[in-house]
Amino acid sequence: MRALVLERKGELSLRDVDLPLKMGPSDVKIAIDTVGVCGSDVHYYTHGRIGPYVVERPMVLGHEASGRVVEVGAAVKNLAAGDRVCMEPGIPDPTSRASRLGLYNVDPNVVFWATPPVHGCLTSQVVHPAAFTYKLPDNVSFAEGAMVEPLAIGLQASVKARIQPGDVAVVTGCGTIGIVTALAALAGGCSRVLISDVLKDKLEIAGRYPGITPVNVKSQDLKAAVRGATDGWGADVLFEASGSPAVFKGMFDLVRPGGCVVLIGIPIDPVPFDVAGAQAREARVETVFRYANIYPRAIALIASGKIDLKPLISGTYAFDDAIQAFQRAAEGRGSDVKLQIRVEAGAGG
Amino acid sequence: MRALVLERKGELSLRDVDLPLKMGPSDVKIAIDTVGVCGSDVHYYTHGRIGPYVVERPMVLGHEASGRVVEVGAAVKNLAAGDRVCMEPGIPDPTSRASRLGLYNVDPNVVFWATPPVHGCLTSQVVHPAAFTYKLPDNVSFAEGAMVEPLAIGLQASVKARIQPGDVAVVTGCGTIGIVTALAALAGGCSRVLISDVLKDKLEIAGRYPGITPVNVKSQDLKAAVRGATDGWGADVLFEASGSPAVFKGMFDLVRPGGCVVLIGIPIDPVPFDVAGAQAREARVETVFRYANIYPRAIALIASGKIDLKPLISGTYAFDDAIQAFQRAAEGRGSDVKLQIRVEAGAGG
Amino acid sequence: MRALVLERKGELSLRDVDLPLKMGPSDVKIAIDTVGVCGSDVHYYTHGRIGPYVVERPMVLGHEASGRVVEVGAAVKNLAAGDRVCMEPGIPDPTSRASRLGLYNVDPNVVFWATPPVHGCLTSQVVHPAAFTYKLPDNVSFAEGAMVEPLAIGLQASVKARIQPGDVAVVTGCGTIGIVTALAALAGGCSRVLISDVLKDKLEIAGRYPGITPVNVKSQDLKAAVRGATDGWGADVLFEASGSPAVFKGMFDLVRPGGCVVLIGIPIDPVPFDVAGAQAREARVETVFRYANIYPRAIALIASGKIDLKPLISGTYAFDDAIQAFQRAAEGRGSDVKLQIRVEAGAGG
Amino acid sequence: MRALVLERKGELSLRDVDLPLKMGPSDVKIAIDTVGVCGSDVHYYTHGRIGPYVVERPMVLGHEASGRVVEVGAAVKNLAAGDRVCMEPGIPDPTSRASRLGLYNVDPNVVFWATPPVHGCLTSQVVHPAAFTYKLPDNVSFAEGAMVEPLAIGLQASVKARIQPGDVAVVTGCGTIGIVTALAALAGGCSRVLISDVLKDKLEIAGRYPGITPVNVKSQDLKAAVRGATDGWGADVLFEASGSPAVFKGMFDLVRPGGCVVLIGIPIDPVPFDVAGAQAREARVETVFRYANIYPRAIALIASGKIDLKPLISGTYAFDDAIQAFQRAAEGRGSDVKLQIRVEAGAGG
Repeated sequence: MRALVLERKGELSLRDVDLPLKMGPSDVKIAIDTVGVCGSDVHYYTHGRIGPYVVERPMVLGHEASGRVVEVGAAVKNLAAGDRVCMEPGIPDPTSRASRLGLYNVDPNVVFWATPPVHGCLTSQVVHPAAFTYKLPDNVSFAEGAMVEPLAIGLQASVKARIQPGDVAVVTGCGTIGIVTALAALAGGCSRVLISDVLKDKLEIAGRYPGITPVNVKSQDLKAAVRGATDGWGADVLFEASGSPAVFKGMFDLVRPGGCVVLIGIPIDPVPFDVAGAQAREARVETVFRYANIYPRAIALIASGKIDLKPLISGTYAFDDAIQAFQRAAEGRGSDVKLQIRVEAGAGG
Repeated sequence: MRALVLERKGELSLRDVDLPLKMGPSDVKIAIDTVGVCGSDVHYYTHGRIGPYVVERPMVLGHEASGRVVEVGAAVKNLAAGDRVCMEPGIPDPTSRASRLGLYNVDPNVVFWATPPVHGCLTSQVVHPAAFTYKLPDNVSFAEGAMVEPLAIGLQASVKARIQPGDVAVVTGCGTIGIVTALAALAGGCSRVLISDVLKDKLEIAGRYPGITPVNVKSQDLKAAVRGATDGWGADVLFEASGSPAVFKGMFDLVRPGGCVVLIGIPIDPVPFDVAGAQAREARVETVFRYANIYPRAIALIASGKIDLKPLISGTYAFDDAIQAFQRAAEGRGSDVKLQIRVEAGAGG
Repeated sequence: MRALVLERKGELSLRDVDLPLKMGPSDVKIAIDTVGVCGSDVHYYTHGRIGPYVVERPMVLGHEASGRVVEVGAAVKNLAAGDRVCMEPGIPDPTSRASRLGLYNVDPNVVFWATPPVHGCLTSQVVHPAAFTYKLPDNVSFAEGAMVEPLAIGLQASVKARIQPGDVAVVTGCGTIGIVTALAALAGGCSRVLISDVLKDKLEIAGRYPGITPVNVKSQDLKAAVRGATDGWGADVLFEASGSPAVFKGMFDLVRPGGCVVLIGIPIDPVPFDVAGAQAREARVETVFRYANIYPRAIALIASGKIDLKPLISGTYAFDDAIQAFQRAAEGRGSDVKLQIRVEAGAGG
Repeated sequence: MRALVLERKGELSLRDVDLPLKMGPSDVKIAIDTVGVCGSDVHYYTHGRIGPYVVERPMVLGHEASGRVVEVGAAVKNLAAGDRVCMEPGIPDPTSRASRLGLYNVDPNVVFWATPPVHGCLTSQVVHPAAFTYKLPDNVSFAEGAMVEPLAIGLQASVKARIQPGDVAVVTGCGTIGIVTALAALAGGCSRVLISDVLKDKLEIAGRYPGITPVNVKSQDLKAAVRGATDGWGADVLFEASGSPAVFKGMFDLVRPGGCVVLIGIPIDPVPFDVAGAQAREARVETVFRYANIYPRAIALIASGKIDLKPLISGTYAFDDAIQAFQRAAEGRGSDVKLQIRVEAGAGG
């Protein structure tokens, strides 16, 4: 089966790979339509590793996917051949202690696409558990379906924040995850969101959405902006989506008494954390690791029109041009939010 | 001072009343601009009582108000003369046990406008604690400011529901409170709301909002509608805003496992409650009594454009015509949602 | 295999039954040691049904069990042959939507011991998923292990109540579930618990525990007792464990502003529910259906000595005398809390 | 009025001070009985400051107090002369935005005893708001009443942790706050608590309580101890009560997936915080600043016998010997937990 393979750090090829397609009774087989290029895919391509995860053997990339069901196992009831779907890329042990608690995302035994040594989904077909495969409504395209995965991270953060209607949020970091987090926060009840970064192209894209105020911290003081937006009270929620240690300095000055900070970005090393500043406001800090039970929420919000991801798709490549997509992604153009690859260009959507 | 006085059941007059306007250091004096006519005002007019609250002496009506600050006490910092404001109609004892817990709405000692024997605000000026007086942003009109009070009930319900982004909600009862609850639920994160009633005019008004699906239970089966909207899973939240005992029959069939029911409507007598049905889903039931800490949220959501209350204002009356407004409200026209009275017609807004 | 079989309403026999003992890779085989007699077992015996669940074919009774592992499947890691264990009697579909949320107890597809047509565990051996089988510490006896099941209901109620340390609770109903709920509430943080009933023997047993105050509502006014114990503020939590409709009258007068009512008892018909009374305090109502993720908590609290269940075991019968145990349970002696049957009398514990 | 005055860093005197005793209608006048010596009192004595709070003028020390009401204001209903009481040392603005939310402890305008420039309560009499004065039950001594303040911090931490019955907790730091936090965690539902430090005397005192396991990290590996106590799953809650930056290294390895860390200790500088480690478990981090709405809980738990503070009182001094008490406290003896001063030695208790 044809697949985009990371042979080793810096070397991609589009070639046939022998991937297992054995179906169990609760599985479905899916013809992949669209796959988004994620920062983690690009990082494996450029660095050959992410922290403890090292690419030691050729690995198929890709984990943000949509497609069409072509076959269903005998026990599958919620899906049928022909259904347009998107898939959670992580498969937990459903009987583990974490899964039984509903925290299947932090089950240590999760198997996750394109995390070495597990192959990803930039290939023609995959077999996947029906329980982690979600039908797309007619008004949600394959392109949007392949955006559910990153949006799910933003929504997981919104759920963790326990947003109350009318909250004011700050998002630090205006990359893909920062922007989808801002959209998730607005859809989740915030009245407005300030998003900060130093990248003016990305801030401009974010700022086109109603309700989002971009703050370029090169020229603007974020604390002053937050105080101005909240009568000096502070933000209800701060979503940290940059992973930058610099953001942690004075972080709690941005937050109201009893407010919340949600840590989404993943700094490589420990960051300097102002315990006394957090205590002075009795701030709560939540942390996010992927998502659990979020896909149906993400799909419902896209279908309802409350979240519009289409402006974030900066470029779409045919499967034959997949390597170019990765090369462009590796450049890190300021105006690119999400690049996607159409594996099944003729499938429609 | 001129005021709209309920002399006794069924008898209103617009006349001078001697109302105290003594300011404390933490008070503000407000020239009233707009006052909404609430169902409770109308009920006192038509019945002379609501449950244990009996109109025994002439009482000024009105508690949904906006206005302009004309004087501030020496200790007031958050407001200045000239500010456009709206006011919480209930004043708790801020040191009571309930208030210290943040539950000042259920402080048994709350003094609430137009709840016998306390006078309301359908008069030229009132003195009010600055802590319960809220500045209106420039883009929120006095008419909208006077709608904050009913909206606050819907938002209190949304906060109690702990909506998660993408939830599907049902609202039973399409009166004023039902509609603002639906709007609050959407603003608070729901992807869609089904609202049920037998009144087609009101359902039509609600149905004009994107995201709201009216269900006329005269001709449609609500349970089937909910199952259709949720793949048979059930609604995440049911907001009961009708006060009708009939709604309680089969109520929990509408709710998903682990879902929530929020009781807003106030049935006169105990209702038949299906404990076993609630248990089978481990449903949580929340109850709402007015609101606490909600006004800033309501104002922020109106100012942001996420909640548009203007379509709900069905008629506006000059203060001189206030009695006509009450007579019309007492008729209960199907197409009326909210009637308002401009006390200070020349004040602009 | 020898088992206690309910042949039909009113007729028990102890005889050989052909029960499947086929092991999957994630299962364990357990030699049953002790089984408690539950009110539901007795109800099937005396009435042949509980609501929609009708005994139409001979069914093995029993679901409160402890035992010893005799064989483990190939994939089992947390258990070994020889381990002393107790078992959750309900087995959900771990990939269902409810299970993925951590709400596996309300998965509609749960298969539960001794709920028609599913056989129970009053037999020599059972095969059970390792994920729902829990090791007993050395200082927890088989008798206590077989009490984990009813205790788990009380603990589920405590978790739902979100007890804060120092809370005062009321338990209405002093049956087995009422008493274990009181113990769970104390272990879960309550400073004291009032328990009410009309049965003086049961109240006396409950009252022997420090921290539990029995209130015989034949002669005492429960509301006065609660007000006396809380300076007139009301109880933080009311656990309804009687299933009696009479308890619902004035129920919310017992609860403080912002307090909680947890419904554990299962009334047969809808009960009269005082919505306005609940709203006046913004009471929250939680409902309980069995338990999820509670067994490890129950075992830890027994092992720690914080919960002592031994005084609740009113009688122990040899397997050969199992029918006598049921006959005595059906009498409903006032001084009996829990009867148990030793299936494996020689196994020690 | 006689008082213990910190004249300047390092210099205490017991002398007459002119302290205002003006009563408002909602105040009570209290004859002080017992005052505990807090680490913060000692720190002002030895260093003349704590962070931004600098002793610039002579200041009366003490904020952990009990006493007897000698006079009540006209509006006071909950107290009468003769009542034995303890007092919250912080008085918020009850109408501030934080107070209205129930978060009065983080109201920036709190006035707190013995925090410069506010005088403390190591004097004969104080005037205090009745709303922050709490009656002691007959079975709670003045000495215990003066321990309510530190216990309240531990209970605030327990409330923030949202302990579920049967949780296993770790407390890092075995000072006074560490020990009362362990007791609060046990009373609040934990089945067991591991407490770590390098001070063997303090660990020994803690270890005498049933349910508390001391871990001397000089010789024992805390992570191994936690894994041993939790079958490798990790602690449900970690209470950080040392303020030591070293504890933050590997902190999240001690916590289970979905677990909680509560930060009580106040490190002087930012600490190295392992964001990725927290995320891998989706740990929640709560922070504590004093307490709100906790005193009634603390008193109830002492009165019930669930929390026994008497073993923590290491020495009691007459008011005349108050300076000796501070000198001993400044030595920091390993076996001292709490020293107290009897201001009103003849008052009984």
